[in-house]
Amino acid sequence: MYLGRVAGCVWATAKDPSLAGQRILIIQPVTPEFRDSGKPVLCADCTSAGAGEFVYWLRGKEASFPFLPQDVPIDTCVVGIIDSIHLKPAAKPAKKR
Amino acid sequence: MYLGRVAGCVWATAKDPSLAGQRILIIQPVTPEFRDSGKPVLCADCTSAGAGEFVYWLRGKEASFPFLPQDVPIDTCVVGIIDSIHLKPAAKPAKKR
Amino acid sequence: MYLGRVAGCVWATAKDPSLAGQRILIIQPVTPEFRDSGKPVLCADCTSAGAGEFVYWLRGKEASFPFLPQDVPIDTCVVGIIDSIHLKPAAKPAKKR
Amino acid sequence: MYLGRVAGCVWATAKDPSLAGQRILIIQPVTPEFRDSGKPVLCADCTSAGAGEFVYWLRGKEASFPFLPQDVPIDTCVVGIIDSIHLKPAAKPAKKR
Amino acid sequence: MYLGRVAGCVWATAKDPSLAGQRILIIQPVTPEFRDSGKPVLCADCTSAGAGEFVYWLRGKEASFPFLPQDVPIDTCVVGIIDSIHLKPAAKPAKKR
Repeated sequence: MYLGRVAGCVWATAKDPSLAGQRILIIQPVTPEFRDSGKPVLCADCTSAGAGEFVYWLRGKEASFPFLPQDVPIDTCVVGIIDSIHLKPAAKPAKKR
Repeated sequence: MYLGRVAGCVWATAKDPSLAGQRILIIQPVTPEFRDSGKPVLCADCTSAGAGEFVYWLRGKEASFPFLPQDVPIDTCVVGIIDSIHLKPAAKPAKKR
Repeated sequence: MYLGRVAGCVWATAKDPSLAGQRILIIQPVTPEFRDSGKPVLCADCTSAGAGEFVYWLRGKEASFPFLPQDVPIDTCVVGIIDSIHLKPAAKPAKKR
Repeated sequence: MYLGRVAGCVWATAKDPSLAGQRILIIQPVTPEFRDSGKPVLCADCTSAGAGEFVYWLRGKEASFPFLPQDVPIDTCVVGIIDSIHLKPAAKPAKKR
Repeated sequence: MYLGRVAGCVWATAKDPSLAGQRILIIQPVTPEFRDSGKPVLCADCTSAGAGEFVYWLRGKEASFPFLPQDVPIDTCVVGIIDSIHLKPAAKPAKKR
């Protein structure tokens, strides 16, 4: 899964019928320090995330699991809203033999 | 899903039989500000998008869902035509503990 | 799907048994202007494409659909030979509200 | 699969119900020499890996296999904790005909 | 599929139970000219490839097909050992209309 920020949304009238009623968010990927990083993607949403919220989203067939048993043509989906992030400093490398 | 612009199409006579009658569009990925960004891909289409239209498309097995129950060898598909895009300014970072 | 040029092929004796008799092509990805772009990949083939021909290929589980009901370990497959490409000039951006 | 270091974790209250009770780790990809390389990802975990440990993780639908028969919306998962890595020097190229 | 060189292997005691007895190789991707290119990945193996050998490997759910009917959490797998590579010079571009 990846960290992201809800940066906006997309309106579309002509679309695959199984996408009717589905919100499509614009997600800007961010680093664990909440800095923008990389290209925006469009995601479906199963968390009711609002504009500006930090979320995590996933990519691939799994992104359509929250909509099972329907097979919706979705390859990215927001699945959680971030409360907080805990970062640990880098550990010393493992022994290499 | 990703934003894109319909940049053209491809003709192919010799192809997998299950692709017969399938339009193959050339999609140029674009940013939410509608600027070209990245390499073009070839997409199937289930929206009848025309040349120059802005669309969203997806990648992966999900791209073949609009053609179920047939298992067509397609890994990218246009699933919606963009009416408009609403962008929100970046919010202030969430608390990091 | 992606555009590519058949750049060669690969011989392998030791391989997964389900790949026996399968041609493995070296595909050089190309732009819609037929210029080389990016790293070569190895693809299975269901079109009998010859050396130097321009083709389109796909990536992912869908790449094994032409070989159903067998589950062959293939993640890229040539599915069509390009006859011609029609490119449209970039359209004016959609209204952004 | 990819090498990574457990760099932290993420708290989320609002999320897809099937993710309840699931730890979400921040994984920093590393090279075989244990140097950071590339962008962090969020991974589920089926190994109880601790902060700073070196692990290997995978991407895609397979990442949800450890949670079968449940179809959890997960696309990355830590599946092993590294004990040690053995690197061989580069061999001389195979004959090219 | 992709070309690679067997660059080493990984030991892991704590791992998903379905990975028990599975060799995990470090694969360095290479070009068709056998030069290193890109970041190493960890692959399962169904060919008994040895250190320094040139192989081809694949990515995605298909990588777990050689282990069917078991659903092992594997997303990359070596499926063939390269005997030789035949490269053709670039052909002249197809007609563009």
